[in-house]
Amino acid sequence: MWKPDRQSKQPLFQQIADDLERRISYGEFPPGSLLPSERKLAEQLGVNRSTVIMAFAELRSLGIIESQIGSGTRVSKYKWGVTPKHTPNWHRYAEGGSFLPNVPFLRRIREALGQRPSLIDFASGELAANLSPIDEITTLMNENQYTAYLGYDNPQGYVPLRQTLVSYLRQYRGIQTTESSILITSGSQQSLYLITQCLLSPGDAVAIEDPSYCYSLPMFQSAGLQLFRLPVDCKGIRPDDIRSLYKKHRIKMVFINPNFQNPTGTVLDSERRIQLLNVASELGLPIVEDDPFSLTAYDGTPPLPLKSMDPIGSILYIGSFSKIAASGLRIGWMIAPHSVVERLADARQQMDFGLSVFPQQVAGQFLKSPFFDPHLERLRMQLLFKRDVLIEALQRELPGLVEFTVPQGGLHLWCKLVPEIHDGKLLEEAIRRGVVFVPGSVYGSDSGFVRFTFARPDTEEIVSGISKFAEALRSIIN
Amino acid sequence: MWKPDRQSKQPLFQQIADDLERRISYGEFPPGSLLPSERKLAEQLGVNRSTVIMAFAELRSLGIIESQIGSGTRVSKYKWGVTPKHTPNWHRYAEGGSFLPNVPFLRRIREALGQRPSLIDFASGELAANLSPIDEITTLMNENQYTAYLGYDNPQGYVPLRQTLVSYLRQYRGIQTTESSILITSGSQQSLYLITQCLLSPGDAVAIEDPSYCYSLPMFQSAGLQLFRLPVDCKGIRPDDIRSLYKKHRIKMVFINPNFQNPTGTVLDSERRIQLLNVASELGLPIVEDDPFSLTAYDGTPPLPLKSMDPIGSILYIGSFSKIAASGLRIGWMIAPHSVVERLADARQQMDFGLSVFPQQVAGQFLKSPFFDPHLERLRMQLLFKRDVLIEALQRELPGLVEFTVPQGGLHLWCKLVPEIHDGKLLEEAIRRGVVFVPGSVYGSDSGFVRFTFARPDTEEIVSGISKFAEALRSIIN
Repeated sequence: MWKPDRQSKQPLFQQIADDLERRISYGEFPPGSLLPSERKLAEQLGVNRSTVIMAFAELRSLGIIESQIGSGTRVSKYKWGVTPKHTPNWHRYAEGGSFLPNVPFLRRIREALGQRPSLIDFASGELAANLSPIDEITTLMNENQYTAYLGYDNPQGYVPLRQTLVSYLRQYRGIQTTESSILITSGSQQSLYLITQCLLSPGDAVAIEDPSYCYSLPMFQSAGLQLFRLPVDCKGIRPDDIRSLYKKHRIKMVFINPNFQNPTGTVLDSERRIQLLNVASELGLPIVEDDPFSLTAYDGTPPLPLKSMDPIGSILYIGSFSKIAASGLRIGWMIAPHSVVERLADARQQMDFGLSVFPQQVAGQFLKSPFFDPHLERLRMQLLFKRDVLIEALQRELPGLVEFTVPQGGLHLWCKLVPEIHDGKLLEEAIRRGVVFVPGSVYGSDSGFVRFTFARPDTEEIVSGISKFAEALRSIIN
Repeated sequence: MWKPDRQSKQPLFQQIADDLERRISYGEFPPGSLLPSERKLAEQLGVNRSTVIMAFAELRSLGIIESQIGSGTRVSKYKWGVTPKHTPNWHRYAEGGSFLPNVPFLRRIREALGQRPSLIDFASGELAANLSPIDEITTLMNENQYTAYLGYDNPQGYVPLRQTLVSYLRQYRGIQTTESSILITSGSQQSLYLITQCLLSPGDAVAIEDPSYCYSLPMFQSAGLQLFRLPVDCKGIRPDDIRSLYKKHRIKMVFINPNFQNPTGTVLDSERRIQLLNVASELGLPIVEDDPFSLTAYDGTPPLPLKSMDPIGSILYIGSFSKIAASGLRIGWMIAPHSVVERLADARQQMDFGLSVFPQQVAGQFLKSPFFDPHLERLRMQLLFKRDVLIEALQRELPGLVEFTVPQGGLHLWCKLVPEIHDGKLLEEAIRRGVVFVPGSVYGSDSGFVRFTFARPDTEEIVSGISKFAEALRSIIN
């Protein structure tokens, strides 16, 4: 992102006006389109709002832009030709389409992080750079040749990675499968997208944990699905709830994250697992099991997935490299019956023609390398340490004001705030003080819950982040 | 893919039966699901059909599978539990959903290539391994560190790659743009997918070249769009046709591939370019310009894109690394106004959470390296050479039976067959003889056209492939 040069002799406002004129003339902002607001541009460029106001005045005097009170600042239409030519109404196209935008809180968080990379980030559900196996992967890349083939990949994904996953899934997840039952995807996100787009139809009813990260994904609504809730208590969902939802709404599929559930951290009770599988087989109901966090179990004994006890094939299993190693490789996998894998691989070809081979080669090498086990061990210890730093900070800064159950794995701490607060107000106060988190309502819960991801910030950031968060919270309850 | 071991003492049919039993027990074929046909399995495993029949008989005698005349062979339901448990009806889920499968001819070609990798491939629209810059990229990867960051990428794509593309687009394509107007995508395929899914709504009318590779993409129908045709003659489309389509059907967008059009190889005439831009600005109509082939211009002077003469921003420009360097990196780019890029980046986050950083780093390094120009030069010379080998082979093998215009760039030769033939019959005869091509009807033309991609097979394969194709053609006209 371009920033004005404070050493230059040219005034800041003039630099900004010149840059905007260039961006307008290159089509980033076509004739008739809306410019970002003065406030937003000032934040992006790190200048006072008055400087942006002067830059806008300069462009207005040249006839390049026009401002109207209440409708913002637009690129002038008539500057660009003798006859009144028409640029497409891009804004209307961008607003159209049946695909819904991300939820507002998440867009706000992304915007804030984009503008101020120094924000302490309890929001992004990913590992810190120093928890990712960067050195190990660099070593593997230096030892191996990754460029033998640069053509399109197999529609189901790179065959050697699928072969590695067959062993990985048996050894680490207790799952027996075949390489032709595996589809490599761009993380769990793409697995879920393919399932909601290709196996379900508009109007279909599905059941989802409450709360659940699924509520943060507008893809369920974009696909026209009706969502029904399965409340999560300290032992996870109650399988009987599925039976009654099925009777009332003929639900077509159940989405569940049984191990260290996102956001609550809950592990589904073992008795309920058996009940759940019985309900599924009784109703012939498919269950989508998302299993990204299991290997982070802090005590080193990851709970097994439902899929490992699924004799009749009720379960579509989703796994990922993102939360145990590196989200930036964009490697996930799905295990499904032959007919489903074929269908989804065909659809994915139409969407993006499959994944790049490189990251698949790298992920496969890492999973079968001697680096993997020590990496997991280190990851678990550091996550446990960070969890405890976070909990201590919360107890110190907000005694009596937050409640939570201590998670035994995963990247998140789910907190209930004791005072009644307004989610959006708290988020804005926190951003103002330099920290972001995800309000619980993003996950479908009532106002007054918060998800803190402790995997991304370092321990010092956790301490100062919670201190800033505490200030923000106190500022709105007083 | 598992194959039976011909050295083993165990009979082939027994090995196959054991493997199928394993795949069934692991859930690849759940209870009640359909097994592949005897013919298909025999092809996949490289054995006689009678061997598969024996393997099926063995499994049937164990009660693992059941055959019914006319409805194929299914996995038995009652083998798997005392009570009649229900596995989900996966087949119905796989058939459901509003997302359409790939067109049958393309699925048939993919299946044939999957089963017999030795087929001579005039169908896949990609470069041969020896036309890709494998050595150059290996050198760059050894010189550079690619693993500094393994977290999620910027939603619009890796910033340094976008910066490199700003220079690349100015230098090679005459396009002035800004890094914030660029969205990195998983090839042109994902750009088109995002546009059809997110900027258009079901029922919207769009105009597409006739013939066009767009007809091979069911995503237009999956998005519920109405397609109207713009016939391509030797100078490309006639812009006046757009005006009349707009009057009749209120078309919302035009899709066009003006340089070395896929499949015809046509270059849009320069006068028509001006007319086209005038029509677009008169109607306020957005044009999607796909520009994957320009840099392959055999004479070394690539035609400029429409986007380079688009002052008012009517054009969404799509480019790609696939046809000029390596499809396997899955790197494409779109240039669009700010509001459109923001919207599509947000939607893409929901679909796959963005691309892996690695291939973006590699592609960016290569585009700005001193290797790029010599690579392009070599690519052009070799494509020209292969084009001529193909044309000579066609003239020698099928004099008077094929007609074509000689393309000046691109990867494809578009042929009209003089005798009247049945597309599907010709394809099957060709596959039987060891060669695949794409029937013209896949691109929306009448029966009797063929697209040969000469970039993938080597020159010897081109010669023997056309000889096999000629045999296939003669076998059905006699």
